Amino acid sequence: MMNDTVIAQLKDIVGEANVLTDKADLVTYSYDATADLPSRMPDVIVLPATTAEVRHIVLIAKKNKLAVYPRGAGTNLSGGTIPLQRGIVLSFQRMDRILEVDPENLTATVQAGVVIQALNDAVAPYGLMYPPDPGTVTTATMGGSVAECAGGLRGLKYGVTKHYVLGMEVVLASGEVFRFGGKTVKNVTAYDFASLFVGSEGTLGIITQITVKLVPPPQYRKAMLATFQRLEDAGNTVTGIIKAHIIPATLEIMDRVTIQTVENYAKVGLPTDAEALLLIEVDGGSQDLVDAEAEAVLKVIVEHGGKVRLAQSEVERDRIWTARRAALPALAQVSPTTILEDATVPRNRIADMLVAVQDIARRYRLRIGTFGHAGDGNLHPTILTDVRNAEEMERVHRAVDEIFATALRLGGTLSGEHGIGLAKMKYLGDELNGSGLNLMRCLKDALDPDSILNPAKMVPLKRSL
Amino acid sequence: MMNDTVIAQLKDIVGEANVLTDKADLVTYSYDATADLPSRMPDVIVLPATTAEVRHIVLIAKKNKLAVYPRGAGTNLSGGTIPLQRGIVLSFQRMDRILEVDPENLTATVQAGVVIQALNDAVAPYGLMYPPDPGTVTTATMGGSVAECAGGLRGLKYGVTKHYVLGMEVVLASGEVFRFGGKTVKNVTAYDFASLFVGSEGTLGIITQITVKLVPPPQYRKAMLATFQRLEDAGNTVTGIIKAHIIPATLEIMDRVTIQTVENYAKVGLPTDAEALLLIEVDGGSQDLVDAEAEAVLKVIVEHGGKVRLAQSEVERDRIWTARRAALPALAQVSPTTILEDATVPRNRIADMLVAVQDIARRYRLRIGTFGHAGDGNLHPTILTDVRNAEEMERVHRAVDEIFATALRLGGTLSGEHGIGLAKMKYLGDELNGSGLNLMRCLKDALDPDSILNPAKMVPLKRSL
Repeated sequence: MMNDTVIAQLKDIVGEANVLTDKADLVTYSYDATADLPSRMPDVIVLPATTAEVRHIVLIAKKNKLAVYPRGAGTNLSGGTIPLQRGIVLSFQRMDRILEVDPENLTATVQAGVVIQALNDAVAPYGLMYPPDPGTVTTATMGGSVAECAGGLRGLKYGVTKHYVLGMEVVLASGEVFRFGGKTVKNVTAYDFASLFVGSEGTLGIITQITVKLVPPPQYRKAMLATFQRLEDAGNTVTGIIKAHIIPATLEIMDRVTIQTVENYAKVGLPTDAEALLLIEVDGGSQDLVDAEAEAVLKVIVEHGGKVRLAQSEVERDRIWTARRAALPALAQVSPTTILEDATVPRNRIADMLVAVQDIARRYRLRIGTFGHAGDGNLHPTILTDVRNAEEMERVHRAVDEIFATALRLGGTLSGEHGIGLAKMKYLGDELNGSGLNLMRCLKDALDPDSILNPAKMVPLKRSL
Repeated sequence: MMNDTVIAQLKDIVGEANVLTDKADLVTYSYDATADLPSRMPDVIVLPATTAEVRHIVLIAKKNKLAVYPRGAGTNLSGGTIPLQRGIVLSFQRMDRILEVDPENLTATVQAGVVIQALNDAVAPYGLMYPPDPGTVTTATMGGSVAECAGGLRGLKYGVTKHYVLGMEVVLASGEVFRFGGKTVKNVTAYDFASLFVGSEGTLGIITQITVKLVPPPQYRKAMLATFQRLEDAGNTVTGIIKAHIIPATLEIMDRVTIQTVENYAKVGLPTDAEALLLIEVDGGSQDLVDAEAEAVLKVIVEHGGKVRLAQSEVERDRIWTARRAALPALAQVSPTTILEDATVPRNRIADMLVAVQDIARRYRLRIGTFGHAGDGNLHPTILTDVRNAEEMERVHRAVDEIFATALRLGGTLSGEHGIGLAKMKYLGDELNGSGLNLMRCLKDALDPDSILNPAKMVPLKRSL
């Protein structure tokens, strides 16, 4: 438990108004967007405005052996921001300045609390974009999305967060401020610190500033919607498109449960009798190229028995992506608890994974809607349930175990984009072997010897070897 | 010094024929492609054929506290493979199998000793390519290029080695074999191990297998050669092209010294009265797009006072790239010693850097030819000298110091693609601060506590804080 002296010191650093200890606040910061995980109240929430303030807070935490949980918008889906061992929640909501847009070097530098969409709004006048676009792009912060290596709908062609981070400022567990990388697009001067901190879920250092690469957005694009009567055909179409060497900007899937739920929720005219939909967008720098790619995609769809509708206008295009973006909110309102998973397989195993998830749903008598970034092999099986139903939750847990065992058996991974956090700790050893778990622990111990940074997340607390 | 028991144990593992201790062999492996560095004879060269053999060799090294130097083709340019503390050179020349090409997932898995060009030859029949293309693409191995995070001529549009590594098998300093990642294009299950080992220069683990992403090669391309009477105009043209949001596949520069030397060597018809050349190739999936990009590039060139010649045939295109690839060999034959540097700056500082290098050459009365990947801000100032001339070498060392100080002052980095190795250790602290040096040491200690893996490279031997 935190003593009054520490609270007073924190108030000295950030001002009284930026230290929250009211119960209502503590409850608000006791959970994140992940379902079916324990919530825990922190001792205090602190809202720094500068890197220097973050540094002072970390020094206090270090001295008093208090846990520190860096937190953006709390949208993450693996329990990564839950203050499991009480301590200090470090909210970045006040560190929301875009420090620079550099149109000559195609870079931007931001504070960690900048919302992703705000960055995109700031760079749009220069004819640039920051491609990573998780579903929460309008609320999630840059710091949080970098810490989780967020993916999104554009990942297939444009890559994920780690492909865009050039440099960073990090406050280390020692309280040291470490800046590395910068505006150079190539840099091999040290170990790849940028990649080490991207996706480290706040366990190795606290990200305070980020320099990212920007790109010009594509000039032309074409969206389409393909309908399938068999799940396997949709999966095999994905493999067929990749095998034909077409890399669409976006290649998303929705199964029947998702289609029906979305249509019921958003009334966008989806074919509710279909077994699966693929939502596809090709883009590029010339109309010819985009037309040719669309044509080639269309051919693969038809070969696999799909029916396709090309968006004839921007309005129709928007409707397709509104439908896709509605998938999670639509599913989430069907039942009290929405358990969103993030199983990823090699792209040619998509069909196998989809069929396996359907079979798991049947055997455990569960409602599972699957949607996701099919082109990346990244599926989000979403279980509609109610945490208050203990008997059903037991079946849910067994189904989830099977989903991840299946993904790994197919050569996949536990997480394509949501991270390990708290939610997937129990499976970690199934993907990494003993050496891998040991290496995680070694890195954590080396960078955070007192384990004050987001403890008990991502890295098992004790050595496994 | 190594005792006979160890030699006998090594022969038991890999067979007598694959353990080399003759003086001629020891001398052969005592240096790499880097000039002006001490050569050191190892105790023994061992040529394993399997990961299991690598593992056994590491266990012997660990037990006897012997240094181990993983070595591909020895083409690296920062002294990374010099056996500085004697011990075992681990040559990967027998581990040269392409284990799998997977055209459905666009991946390939290779042993570390596979030559980059051999991989490209193997995937070409599938209509695929592995984009990273260092100058030594026909001799360098995949293991070495991954350990160095090699760049190359295609880096601007297609990225460098780290953008293509999906998974790896690594023998750790403990002798454990650790496999991670695989064929999934997205994976956030652990810390980003792939990025940690890419560019770690053999200091954190020994890379034995690598799974890489492949891409379809562009269908259309157009090469051009732009001539400038002022170095600054060439530099500003680079900035202008990037600022116009055109990302050519290749955007290379040559200064006057390089032009004259290359022309003298290769007789390809370069304009020897020019102050600088830009060699540019745009590519893409449609002729229209490529034409439009070429047109836009041309406009920027002309705006900056350049004259441009478009390659009218494949022969002419080949001549442009032959000229560029001849830069290093041409410069290297002019003088006994060729010191190739690798200073990288933000792209809008290219002109400043070029002018600064010219000024340094003048002040230190040295012959410096500069060429490199201008589009990446990655320049290779190349000093033509003779290590036997002590007075001149003194000036060379001071000039090199200034070159790197200038790159850092302009917001750049010590190395875009050649690594730190031995050659740039003395500048490391100038780019990283104390926290950075400390972090390098922490990571090294965590993964290689006895410091047997390529010791005294990349990471300072003692803690700096």
